[in-house]
Amino acid sequence: MKTVEYKPIGTIHSPHKDLHGMPIQPVGAKGVKGQIELENEYVEGLKDLDGFSHIILIYHLHMCNGHSLRVKPFLDNVKRGIFATRAPKRPNPIGMSVVCLEKVEGNIIHISNVDILDGTPLLDIKPYIPHFDTCEDEDVCIGWFDDKKQEAKNKKSDKRFVD
Amino acid sequence: MKTVEYKPIGTIHSPHKDLHGMPIQPVGAKGVKGQIELENEYVEGLKDLDGFSHIILIYHLHMCNGHSLRVKPFLDNVKRGIFATRAPKRPNPIGMSVVCLEKVEGNIIHISNVDILDGTPLLDIKPYIPHFDTCEDEDVCIGWFDDKKQEAKNKKSDKRFVD
Repeated sequence: MKTVEYKPIGTIHSPHKDLHGMPIQPVGAKGVKGQIELENEYVEGLKDLDGFSHIILIYHLHMCNGHSLRVKPFLDNVKRGIFATRAPKRPNPIGMSVVCLEKVEGNIIHISNVDILDGTPLLDIKPYIPHFDTCEDEDVCIGWFDDKKQEAKNKKSDKRFVD
Repeated sequence: MKTVEYKPIGTIHSPHKDLHGMPIQPVGAKGVKGQIELENEYVEGLKDLDGFSHIILIYHLHMCNGHSLRVKPFLDNVKRGIFATRAPKRPNPIGMSVVCLEKVEGNIIHISNVDILDGTPLLDIKPYIPHFDTCEDEDVCIGWFDDKKQEAKNKKSDKRFVD
């Protein structure tokens, strides 16, 4: 299939300087602050964003080299299909986090609940809208995660996905 | 900044053959069925996915040419910053939808609540996990969407983002 090419719109800064020992999801990064440094050419696109309390960041997992179709995710010791996990070694290493928007100052966006590695290239920002992004009125099943989800709050990354 | 390159993992098939008159979000596409045709080389990565009722699709908005930093979104008549909207004409045309997973059959994944154009290249599949993807215990503000969200259910796309 034809490849697609994206140009990062900015860089995410965070206290997480190493892939080892990071929170594995925003739920484990409560209060952790970071900043988005947006390329100046896109600042006009931030208008009205400050009305939202939460934003969805879509970013490139730039430290991932290669992918695996079966992985032991951080929360499990059983190999799972990569698409049934949130592990980073995906065929296309795209990360997604819902973070808190604290303040927009020029080309700097202050955020919190940041589970993202410092220096990560940002691809998109979308407003988080529960009416669109959650399945409020539907029954949700979460497969193998069901008895693991509570652990996500305290679990830190280890070296399993570092080359 | 250095560009990133992704190779689509499959194609999304849906009844939406035209950008005009489509549902604008999954909430407006309840019951609309579609299929993901995954490239055979990635089928191994689908193991365990069938335990999940909902999946997050990340895809390339392949019919978008160019971007605008200020747009009138489908739900409004005021120009908004693109990052404060879900409009398709983004600097990186990446779409995201939470859809229902009906059944996995080999390389075909049957889905519903599909608001995606037929033939869309798929970049990633992630399991939807409310514990990670919703802000259950936080106050959420949704800016200009606040008095528009109910309209999303019935609103259809028009030609405003078609070149």
